Amino acid sequence: MRVAMMTTIESDGSLRSRPMVTQDLKAVEFDGDLWFFTYATAHKVGEVEQHHQVNLSYSKPGDNLYVSVSGTGQLVNDRKKIKALWNPIYKAWFPKGEDDPELALMKVHVESAEYWNAPAGKMGALYSI
Amino acid sequence: MRVAMMTTIESDGSLRSRPMVTQDLKAVEFDGDLWFFTYATAHKVGEVEQHHQVNLSYSKPGDNLYVSVSGTGQLVNDRKKIKALWNPIYKAWFPKGEDDPELALMKVHVESAEYWNAPAGKMGALYSI
Ligand SMILES: Cc1cc2nc3c(=O)[nH]c(=O)nc-3n(C[C@H](O)[C@H](O)[C@H](O)COP(=O)(O)O)c2cc1C
Repeated sequence: MRVAMMTTIESDGSLRSRPMVTQDLKAVEFDGDLWFFTYATAHKVGEVEQHHQVNLSYSKPGDNLYVSVSGTGQLVNDRKKIKALWNPIYKAWFPKGEDDPELALMKVHVESAEYWNAPAGKMGALYSI
Repeated sequence: MRVAMMTTIESDGSLRSRPMVTQDLKAVEFDGDLWFFTYATAHKVGEVEQHHQVNLSYSKPGDNLYVSVSGTGQLVNDRKKIKALWNPIYKAWFPKGEDDPELALMKVHVESAEYWNAPAGKMGALYSI
């Protein structure tokens, strides 16, 4: 469940999503924020700066588990946090590594979350502020 | 890849998603539309009537396959199409079956689609109008 599809609102009003690796909740205490590595210049960053609202969806079809997280995104350029969260496997997406000045973090402040975990669509609220 | 997370814009501007079974592309010729069963009175239907834009995301983490579909949604009450697409397994969500007058279809007119199918995030355009 670590790869989210992050949906944002495009400047033309359409909704677009892309896969994003959620930073380990064990590495960062869950205080209502989720963290993602991104390029500071990425298209989605521009979108989030215009429309802060994002949705994160997590799907695990084999286990019939689906999660929707609603929140607001914000670009955070915190070199200490980047170092703390960095793992060499992220070179697949950020080949220049943790010292790349373009590498930044997207913080998603969670406002509500819901999940479905049964074929019949039983659901519950995971989190709500 | 049949269960999509369908993201819509809420009246307060937030983005919400929920799992939805995509109707079999073999049963309906793919002509740029995707079909979903829904209750005509469902919350998401009201959202889509206000903001037509939706995103459908499909995730298959085991195969490293992720798809984003951008389009517009519309409620369609076509009893013939409902009968053509109906399958008893949908009783899990619609216990009253295919003759339930509340049962309807959500048509998503696809405007663009992208996919990612490698760890390094290689991607391509699947569809574009
Ligand atoms: C695997 C799965 C598939 C689902 N498929 C559908 C579906 O095809 N149509 C539908 O209306 N709801 C489906 N649901 C239930 C929806 O996710 C959702 O809870 C319900 O439609 C109400 O959503 P709304 O209040 O946002 O309108 C499914 C749930 C699960 C867990």
